Amino acid sequence: MQVYEAPLRDMRFVIHELHQDDGFGNIEALSEFTPDLVDAVLEEAAKVAQEVLLPLNRSGDIEGCVLENGVVRTPGGFKEAYDLFREGGWCALASDPEWGGQGLPETVNKMTEEMICSSNLSFSLYPGLTHGATTAIEGYASDELKQAYLPKMVSGDWSGTMCLTEPHCGTDLGMLRTRAVTQDDGSYKLTGSKIFISAGEHDLTENIIHLVLARLPDAPEGVKGISLFLVPKYLPKDDGTPGPSNGVSVAAIEHKMGLKASATCQLNFDDSIGWLVGTPHKGMEAMFKMMNTERVSVGVQGLGIGEAAYQSAVYYAKDRLQGRSLSGVKNSSGPADPIIVHPDVRRMLMTMRAYNEGCRAMTGWVSRALDAERYSTDPEVRQRATDFIALMTPVVKALFTDLGYESANLAVQVYGGHGYIAESGVEQYVRDGRIAMIYEGTNGIQALDLVGRKLPANMGRNLRSFFHPVSQFIEANKADAQFKPMIEANKSDAQFKPMIEALEKAFGALQLSTATIAQKGMKDPEEAGAAATDYLRLMGLVAMAYCFAQSALIARDKLAGGTEEVGFYKAKLTTAQFYFDRILPQATTAFLAIKSGKASMMALDAAAF
Amino acid sequence: MQVYEAPLRDMRFVIHELHQDDGFGNIEALSEFTPDLVDAVLEEAAKVAQEVLLPLNRSGDIEGCVLENGVVRTPGGFKEAYDLFREGGWCALASDPEWGGQGLPETVNKMTEEMICSSNLSFSLYPGLTHGATTAIEGYASDELKQAYLPKMVSGDWSGTMCLTEPHCGTDLGMLRTRAVTQDDGSYKLTGSKIFISAGEHDLTENIIHLVLARLPDAPEGVKGISLFLVPKYLPKDDGTPGPSNGVSVAAIEHKMGLKASATCQLNFDDSIGWLVGTPHKGMEAMFKMMNTERVSVGVQGLGIGEAAYQSAVYYAKDRLQGRSLSGVKNSSGPADPIIVHPDVRRMLMTMRAYNEGCRAMTGWVSRALDAERYSTDPEVRQRATDFIALMTPVVKALFTDLGYESANLAVQVYGGHGYIAESGVEQYVRDGRIAMIYEGTNGIQALDLVGRKLPANMGRNLRSFFHPVSQFIEANKADAQFKPMIEANKSDAQFKPMIEALEKAFGALQLSTATIAQKGMKDPEEAGAAATDYLRLMGLVAMAYCFAQSALIARDKLAGGTEEVGFYKAKLTTAQFYFDRILPQATTAFLAIKSGKASMMALDAAAF
Repeated sequence: MQVYEAPLRDMRFVIHELHQDDGFGNIEALSEFTPDLVDAVLEEAAKVAQEVLLPLNRSGDIEGCVLENGVVRTPGGFKEAYDLFREGGWCALASDPEWGGQGLPETVNKMTEEMICSSNLSFSLYPGLTHGATTAIEGYASDELKQAYLPKMVSGDWSGTMCLTEPHCGTDLGMLRTRAVTQDDGSYKLTGSKIFISAGEHDLTENIIHLVLARLPDAPEGVKGISLFLVPKYLPKDDGTPGPSNGVSVAAIEHKMGLKASATCQLNFDDSIGWLVGTPHKGMEAMFKMMNTERVSVGVQGLGIGEAAYQSAVYYAKDRLQGRSLSGVKNSSGPADPIIVHPDVRRMLMTMRAYNEGCRAMTGWVSRALDAERYSTDPEVRQRATDFIALMTPVVKALFTDLGYESANLAVQVYGGHGYIAESGVEQYVRDGRIAMIYEGTNGIQALDLVGRKLPANMGRNLRSFFHPVSQFIEANKADAQFKPMIEANKSDAQFKPMIEALEKAFGALQLSTATIAQKGMKDPEEAGAAATDYLRLMGLVAMAYCFAQSALIARDKLAGGTEEVGFYKAKLTTAQFYFDRILPQATTAFLAIKSGKASMMALDAAAF
Repeated sequence: MQVYEAPLRDMRFVIHELHQDDGFGNIEALSEFTPDLVDAVLEEAAKVAQEVLLPLNRSGDIEGCVLENGVVRTPGGFKEAYDLFREGGWCALASDPEWGGQGLPETVNKMTEEMICSSNLSFSLYPGLTHGATTAIEGYASDELKQAYLPKMVSGDWSGTMCLTEPHCGTDLGMLRTRAVTQDDGSYKLTGSKIFISAGEHDLTENIIHLVLARLPDAPEGVKGISLFLVPKYLPKDDGTPGPSNGVSVAAIEHKMGLKASATCQLNFDDSIGWLVGTPHKGMEAMFKMMNTERVSVGVQGLGIGEAAYQSAVYYAKDRLQGRSLSGVKNSSGPADPIIVHPDVRRMLMTMRAYNEGCRAMTGWVSRALDAERYSTDPEVRQRATDFIALMTPVVKALFTDLGYESANLAVQVYGGHGYIAESGVEQYVRDGRIAMIYEGTNGIQALDLVGRKLPANMGRNLRSFFHPVSQFIEANKADAQFKPMIEANKSDAQFKPMIEALEKAFGALQLSTATIAQKGMKDPEEAGAAATDYLRLMGLVAMAYCFAQSALIARDKLAGGTEEVGFYKAKLTTAQFYFDRILPQATTAFLAIKSGKASMMALDAAAF
């Protein structure tokens, strides 16, 4: 059964307790958002997720979107839910107040995104894509375009899309063929076909604003000849309301593995009027701006799916009676014990739990950097935030979506045969979650972005924004760890010293791998490519280990100091310990794989496959 | 696109070249099956798979099975395909000639199963379940029942099912409620409901023979009070043809994640006449007989899906043009290079390839043991075969289905966004393959079977059937490896010495883990439970490493001796090297996880989840 209750306590832990000395805090511009206000917003968001979006998740999967006579109908209830969502101001949560946004911190915004994705991933794409599109418009469009489009898009009255992919090119956008012809009035006419356009057409908003990559007549070949255009579905009239159709039509909607309530469209542009966003031929820059924003959000989709899968699995593991506990009967009045007593079921639940808490902690860290980049008055802090975001964006996108998908699969496994039946709701998490490893750049592309762009950029400066705090933390706590064992009362016997040692060891493997890749990759880029996916995983595991070690330290001190929330902090310690026991060891496998190099990977001739 | 060509060369390698000195060979009773005859059978099987079954795989997924007025209709073409299959003698391939079977070796039978599963997993269940049911009848039923049912079932005129699960019990069969009442004529009347019955009802055969677990009136509680009954859908008339209905009805068919062309039924038995198979209250023994046969076959399903996914991914990786090779343009006449040039795509393809070749090599080994158990005249060999099969059955079931599912997911990843669209055919492999990790005992249950039953059984004798040849092989080749490096001509730079060293190290970790589990598990069974899944994976990785090291040795010698098939053996060496470089390192992670014990896994109170 799909159950979901927003993990508010853990979200508050990440926002208010963790990462407090990461150097990204104390931002004057955000001081109005007091902890009480933040918590109130999160509670309201939880209500929307639980009460409005969750009930439409399975019905949306069953009904799907339908294309009839060129019009896409979203599943029953989606329009009403979107209206509630929009009217509640949720579309505008993190947007600039200049355009009608509420300017809330990214920490709050990303936690809200997590809730929306947990409760209804398909729904999340409609406001989500709009947010990506507004980012590009804010950053690159003319004032005139901003005035005309941003208020309507920020409010959610109009939605947005990102039209990149064409049938013959997705990853390699240099090959795209959609063309834009200059008009006398400074506008352009666009013609071409785009595929895989999320929210490309639907019945939720009165207008849809497409951001379209296309070539100008004089464009250089490849990615250096791509420009970005704003193309509305309906051309706005002088009063700003939607006017005549603009030659954008839906050729088809895709029949997908999942995410069925999200309309994935094939769009044809036929002499559609558009306006340039940014500089001619420099569209990739604006595209990457919106893409990077989206990539972090797609990572959060993975976390959202992982959390929903975890909760649904826990529900079943407590409810389903099969077998007896190996340590003695636990439910003597029933015919069997709930399956949560079995170690292998625990293994699956704890794995999901560790993944989710780890990803959420990392989300909090990256969100604080996003806020610091935007609002900090200290240029040094802003730079460090920018470096950190650049480095972590591919890690968050790929790691979170991989782990979220694994969690979805573990949830099915906890349900056993019942999990394979649609009625259980959990196989939907697998089908929905699968796409997050692919879109906005496959996870393989994320890994290449990390080793090929993010590591060498700025002479390796990006890396320092991450390595520096980790090594500082290890140094600061090595001595301390020696003498302050975790409190005895904790049944899990979590020990801080071995955690720091394990973190140090994994961090050492990461440093060594970085050097290896830099050295080998310089001579032979295929060596960097061969190491990329394992390197990204290794970095993610270390980042998560760092977050868990910090969490354990906070929990230890809280418990030692006498807290009323003994249960919460003990569970935090146990989950951290589980992470170090059972998840971090993956770092060794990744390290060995990186070390082995490209030889056996690249040896076979293509014909031999 | 779903493409499939049976990997006949590798199958011949496994049957005729690998494992030749495993002590399971030279079986007189199978001497009529010469290599030429075996190869001819495999070639015919390939034709059936490629030409008859593959074309129905996607249409079957789209159409699914339909229940109308109590009758289940399989998708278009299935009936005709089944008739061809049956008339070709494929249902009877490995069955005893006494009942009309062809008595072919299991090596041939399992390779044929792989082909059927690659081309159409849904289809495979109809003959597959029948085969499981005949195993139980052959082993436990009265001569009268055998005479009446086996010829029709072996020929495939009638099909069979295994009716175990009820809504409230799957893993914990002790709770089942279906009851059998004794009749004066020695038969029984059964009443109850069963769920998840594969091929429970369909239009492919004129009768369906259900093997049903139920309780007699005087049955002790739990699993010690379960008996097995044969319950035909239609009661045979005196002339052996199907007569009147027997009170078996379909309440529903399940809407599943995949495997949509296989009818998964909820069956009601209403005073249905049945006959006891085996001894009263000893039904679990017969059930396990058929279950164990099925478990190896389900493992082969995982391999089948993995191979189909691999081939479909290779097809796309050679066809799809995106980006340029990092080592220089490879396809200068085209707008981009095929994506098979990219290291991360290679990583995925080589991973699938190594999984498939490794699983196929293990399948060959286990199949040889199955043949030896059945036909060897040497009681010592038979015993060793029985021990080995007992040990490897849970490993084959869980490991192969895990890896096959991973391959299916990698295939989707190779396709990128196109893989998420139903049209590509590859997301079907994910949806179809997911169930194999669950049915016939979840993979967690397999792991518990391994550590809880198979390790301690016969004072650990099962283990010797595996450990002994592996340690002998290491000893025999350590010195040799030192002085005979792989031939220089092999680009992959595969070196035999490091392979043997890596095998020795992983085998050491397995031995140490075995001792740890035996020791800790004796005091606390939850410790064994907490280690089970990682231990199974570790054992599987070592078994596969052993197979790859042997394969590499054979390939090395063939290449050194001058073979016409240089390409095949070089590729074998490269794949072996890739396995040692990139897959076997998982053993370290599994070892560390086992070592960490149950503490952090079991510490949280159920209420804290």
